[in-house]
Amino acid sequence: MIKSMDKKEYIIRQLGRTKNKKYESYVVSRIVHLLNDMDIKFVTQQYITRPNGGRALTDLFFPQLHMHIEVDEEHHKANIDKDRVREADIINATNHEIIRVDVSESIEEINDEIDLIVTKIKNKVEELKSKKVFIPWDTEAEFSSQTYIDRGYIDLADDVKFRTIKDACNCFGHDYTGCQRSNAPHPDKDIMLWFPKLYPNEEWNNQITDDEETIIERNEDDEKARNHVRSHINQIKGEQHKRIIFARVKGNLGDILYRFRGLYKLNLQESSEEKGLVWNRIATRVKTYPNDNTN
Amino acid sequence: MIKSMDKKEYIIRQLGRTKNKKYESYVVSRIVHLLNDMDIKFVTQQYITRPNGGRALTDLFFPQLHMHIEVDEEHHKANIDKDRVREADIINATNHEIIRVDVSESIEEINDEIDLIVTKIKNKVEELKSKKVFIPWDTEAEFSSQTYIDRGYIDLADDVKFRTIKDACNCFGHDYTGCQRSNAPHPDKDIMLWFPKLYPNEEWNNQITDDEETIIERNEDDEKARNHVRSHINQIKGEQHKRIIFARVKGNLGDILYRFRGLYKLNLQESSEEKGLVWNRIATRVKTYPNDNTN
Repeated sequence: MIKSMDKKEYIIRQLGRTKNKKYESYVVSRIVHLLNDMDIKFVTQQYITRPNGGRALTDLFFPQLHMHIEVDEEHHKANIDKDRVREADIINATNHEIIRVDVSESIEEINDEIDLIVTKIKNKVEELKSKKVFIPWDTEAEFSSQTYIDRGYIDLADDVKFRTIKDACNCFGHDYTGCQRSNAPHPDKDIMLWFPKLYPNEEWNNQITDDEETIIERNEDDEKARNHVRSHINQIKGEQHKRIIFARVKGNLGDILYRFRGLYKLNLQESSEEKGLVWNRIATRVKTYPNDNTN
Repeated sequence: MIKSMDKKEYIIRQLGRTKNKKYESYVVSRIVHLLNDMDIKFVTQQYITRPNGGRALTDLFFPQLHMHIEVDEEHHKANIDKDRVREADIINATNHEIIRVDVSESIEEINDEIDLIVTKIKNKVEELKSKKVFIPWDTEAEFSSQTYIDRGYIDLADDVKFRTIKDACNCFGHDYTGCQRSNAPHPDKDIMLWFPKLYPNEEWNNQITDDEETIIERNEDDEKARNHVRSHINQIKGEQHKRIIFARVKGNLGDILYRFRGLYKLNLQESSEEKGLVWNRIATRVKTYPNDNTN
C-alpha cells in the first residue's frame, strides 16, 4: 500500500495529518495550493536537527530546496516527545533555510507573507533549474536504486532514503531481490553497508549525535559489547573499518525508510570496550555502482 | 469572544473544523485559497434541506452565491445524527446550486476540476457585481440591524441571521439594548416578531417542515396546548395571526444565531387543539423599519 503510494495519496495524507497548531493547517495548505507545482515535494511536520543542535519540528519542509516553513504561534510550545522522536526520520537542517510565518498579524498580512514565501520558493526552483540541479519530484524514481545508479552518487543533500534494504544495496553493485540482514558487502572491501537503528533498541544501544557526525554502536549486554568492540579493534573477523550508513527510521506517514547518513570510519582512539565503537563521518557523498551481473 | 469574531478567526475556525472525509480538507482549502477573495464568505459543513426534501451536509457553502460544493467520496455515507442536527442552522437549498467534486480521479484531474469551480465562482461573483446585487462579506455588517434597515428589507435569499434577539428586533423600529423574551411587537399590529426553537425543547414541541413552509407550534403539556390553541383561535388575548420568524439555531462554530425564516400566517383550518397551531409561510421578504425614537 505505502510502497505504491502515488502523489495523490501522498499529498492527501501529508495535508491531512493531525494538526498541532491553530494556524498551521491554514498556512501549510495555502502555501501548497498557491505553489501549485506537482514537481515540488513537500513534507509536513518534519523533525529536524537544528543547525546549532537540538531537535525541532518544522511545519512544512521542501526537501529539494532545503527550505522549511515554521508557523510562529505565540503561545505554542513545540512539545517534542523524545520517545516518539527517537525512531523518527530526522533531517539535519544545517545549511537549510528556515522561514518563519508570523500569524499574530491580520489575515491579509498573513496572506501577504505567504505570497512572498510562495514567490521565494518559485524563485528558488527557477534558480536550481537554471543551474540544472533541480530534480522534479517523482514518487517512483525517488525510491529507486536505478535513479542513484544513473546519477553516479548518493549525496546527503539530496534527501536520499529507500523503502527496503535491498533497494539501498542495489545502488552498490548488488542485484538483490530481498535482504534480511542489516548489513551487506560493498565493492570496496574496506567498506560495509550498514542499516542500523540509531537509537536504543532490543539488542543494541546505538546513538547518533545531533550533528550526525558521530555514531556510537554498543551492545546492550556488557559481555557481548566487549567482544564486539574487541573483534573490530583487532579485526578478528576481518571487520571493515568504514561503513556506508542508511539508518532505519519511521517516516511521518508511519512508513519504514532507510535514510542515507554518509560514509563513516571507525575511530579506534575513541572506541573502547565500555563506550562501544565510535564511528565518525568522513564523507557525505558516496559513489554508486551499476549491477555487475558477472559477479 | 464569538461576537467580535473577525475574518481571521472565522476563516481559521471554519477551515480547521474536524474533517469527515479523506479529501474534504484538500478540496475545501484548495478552493478557498485559490479563490483568494476576502469579499466572499464561506461556511464549511453546512446543513441543508435538499430541494427535494431530506437533510444533508455540504462541505463548502457560499451564502452570497447560493452555491455548495460537495466532495463525492465513493464509500462515504453522510452520517447525519438527527439529535445533533435538530438545533443546527439548516439552510434550505431550493434554488441553490450544488457542485460535486469527483475525487476518484487523479490529483491532476481533481485540481483541474477545482480550477473550473474556482472560475465558475469568480464568474458568478462578477455576474452579481454587474447586476449590483453582490454584497461583499463584512463580518460586522452582516449581523448589524443597521445593514438591513438601510437595505429596507430582510430577504430569505440573503442568508440573514442575528447574534441576539434585540438585533433582530431593532430592524423593526425598536431601539432595544437587550431582549429576554422570545417575542416582540411589530409596527404592524397584526404581526408579532417570534424567536422560537423549531424543534422539541423543554416546554414546546415545535416543528418545521423540510421545505420551511409550515411550522407547527404545540405545548408539550396537553392542557396547556389546548389553552394555547384556543387563545389564538378565539383571539382571547388579542394574539396576532401573523409572525415574522427568526428561528434560534446553533451555528457550525457553536454560536447561537437567530435565522430569518420569513413571514408566517396562522392557518385556522389546519390548527387544532390536538395538533397545535399551524403556521404557513406567506412571504420570504419583509420590510424593515428605522428606529422611531418618538415611540
